[in-house]
Amino acid sequence: MNLRRSHFLRLIAAAGASPLLHTLYHTSTAAPASAAPAATEPLPSWNPGQVKSAITDFVRRTTTPGSPDFIPVEDRIATFDNDGTLWAEQPIIQILAIQARLEMLATADPTLRQTQPFQAALTGDAAYFATAGEAALMQVIALTSANQTDAEFAAQTAAVFETATYPRFDQPVTAMVYQPMQELLTYLRAHAFQTWICSGGGIDFIRVIAQPLYGIPPQQVIGSSLQKDYRAVNGTGQLWRLAEIGRINDKAGKPVGIDLHISKRPVIAGGNVRSGGDIAMLSYSQGRSEVSLQLLVNHDDSDREFAYQEPDDASLNAASANGWQVVSMKNDWKTIFAFQR
Amino acid sequence: MNLRRSHFLRLIAAAGASPLLHTLYHTSTAAPASAAPAATEPLPSWNPGQVKSAITDFVRRTTTPGSPDFIPVEDRIATFDNDGTLWAEQPIIQILAIQARLEMLATADPTLRQTQPFQAALTGDAAYFATAGEAALMQVIALTSANQTDAEFAAQTAAVFETATYPRFDQPVTAMVYQPMQELLTYLRAHAFQTWICSGGGIDFIRVIAQPLYGIPPQQVIGSSLQKDYRAVNGTGQLWRLAEIGRINDKAGKPVGIDLHISKRPVIAGGNVRSGGDIAMLSYSQGRSEVSLQLLVNHDDSDREFAYQEPDDASLNAASANGWQVVSMKNDWKTIFAFQR
Repeated sequence: MNLRRSHFLRLIAAAGASPLLHTLYHTSTAAPASAAPAATEPLPSWNPGQVKSAITDFVRRTTTPGSPDFIPVEDRIATFDNDGTLWAEQPIIQILAIQARLEMLATADPTLRQTQPFQAALTGDAAYFATAGEAALMQVIALTSANQTDAEFAAQTAAVFETATYPRFDQPVTAMVYQPMQELLTYLRAHAFQTWICSGGGIDFIRVIAQPLYGIPPQQVIGSSLQKDYRAVNGTGQLWRLAEIGRINDKAGKPVGIDLHISKRPVIAGGNVRSGGDIAMLSYSQGRSEVSLQLLVNHDDSDREFAYQEPDDASLNAASANGWQVVSMKNDWKTIFAFQR
Repeated sequence: MNLRRSHFLRLIAAAGASPLLHTLYHTSTAAPASAAPAATEPLPSWNPGQVKSAITDFVRRTTTPGSPDFIPVEDRIATFDNDGTLWAEQPIIQILAIQARLEMLATADPTLRQTQPFQAALTGDAAYFATAGEAALMQVIALTSANQTDAEFAAQTAAVFETATYPRFDQPVTAMVYQPMQELLTYLRAHAFQTWICSGGGIDFIRVIAQPLYGIPPQQVIGSSLQKDYRAVNGTGQLWRLAEIGRINDKAGKPVGIDLHISKRPVIAGGNVRSGGDIAMLSYSQGRSEVSLQLLVNHDDSDREFAYQEPDDASLNAASANGWQVVSMKNDWKTIFAFQR
């Protein structure tokens, strides 16, 4: 319960820091950023250095037949957080989508602008939600992404990805993917690793975009979920999204989600610094009986992306204590976004 | 709630019909039955006829490039029920495992034999559970498969598969797989279908055996689950099995489970006649916008397997109304179990 509340409050807090909604509905077409081909040199958007070497050394050691650290193909599982690890999270893109959906509904029904909690969500009033709590948040979630069929939600989400732009950079939201991480996913798959997303964000939201953006099929996405039931809608059996949380896939919920969907500890796990949300996943990966690799993306590049820390530095402290690789966006990444090339 | 209760009561009812526990711990080694090689003729354990033709025609139409019914590889999802569809369910093998575990615990602590609800579970007293309800069942589940780590449960389950034998046939439980269905799984994978299990049984129980028995990796098993948390056990982060139901993957819960794990309607879905447990899954498959195939195994062979019906014939009526293929074990299967060859 505590976990659930803190997660959504964090989401809404991030929304409060987000820019004006009118930047969302530009008419630009969001072409997915394409990963640069690996060609001869693997990971071309990564600068040479300790982190890049750690990655390529690990993949060589674990995939070369006869190597003492060889890992059978069926165990080559790699899991990655999404927000802040594979794409930008200042603001969180799903929050933009929720606000955009609310804005669209408020255009059709202007009374929403004077009705709480929708007014607070539309204006990014984090203080309201800090007081009103989970019930208020569920009202927003219910209005924007529950009480509808899965197919309706997917169509609505696809429309967001086709039209929404990201503040500060004024780029399609789909351009906010980190090119070095796209390359890493491709590189791992070329070595027969299964690449999975394990995100605190909504499982069905990410599934709409995971294949075109990351080359990850929907069945390899793990995330937070609503309860659903199966019911007849217009004469056909449909999945119906209930206004009730199923599972929150954050912090200690990530190993639980990985177990539910994969039931193996990941050989490689990647997360990022912000909320301590990935510490449990990385420690779960490291707890496997054979070799493993943990990556922690640090947002230290205010020029090309953002610079922000955790209040308590828990993720960086865990990385230091456990020998996880800290990826400095500033130093380890030659290119961050394809549009910056 | 209703679904949950009826499911477990049904499981325990099945346990009541199961034979004596002393047949369980024979010293035989359970070698997984191997699927007969497909060689030139596909599905050699299937008799020629309308059902076999429907399967091979469907696979040819959907996997031949240029065919109007061609299905892209990423959408070739096939889901199968387990108990009664892939292996025998009279009695349900997981119930044998639960009773065997209880028997082992009662040997160490004989007071369990005089303590309810364990006494009722040990003696297969279905009437007791019909009165005592869900709380009593959860006590049995908790003692036998909760309040321990995932690793402990997996080891315990593996031991069952290595030692337990199946009543009536006096075979290792792993020999109770249907050879025609093993062939079908292999045949589908040879045509780039992903084969998944979608069972009312326990997800972690089936995952122990799915790869060696069916060639299905653990991440392609969907089933009923307990709640878990991630906690430190002896200094390492472990998944801990709580004595609390997570999800019941039966009846309308099957489309919900498929959506959670795959998020696509199956192209092929297979279930069986007994409890109506697969009707929703088969209708969910048929609800996809393109072509699909539904198979319903009918247990009509008292000589080689078992003959039993549903009280209300709901599954057969649904098959008839919707054009699902009814697989007669008696007529469509040349061989049922490998040990009968």
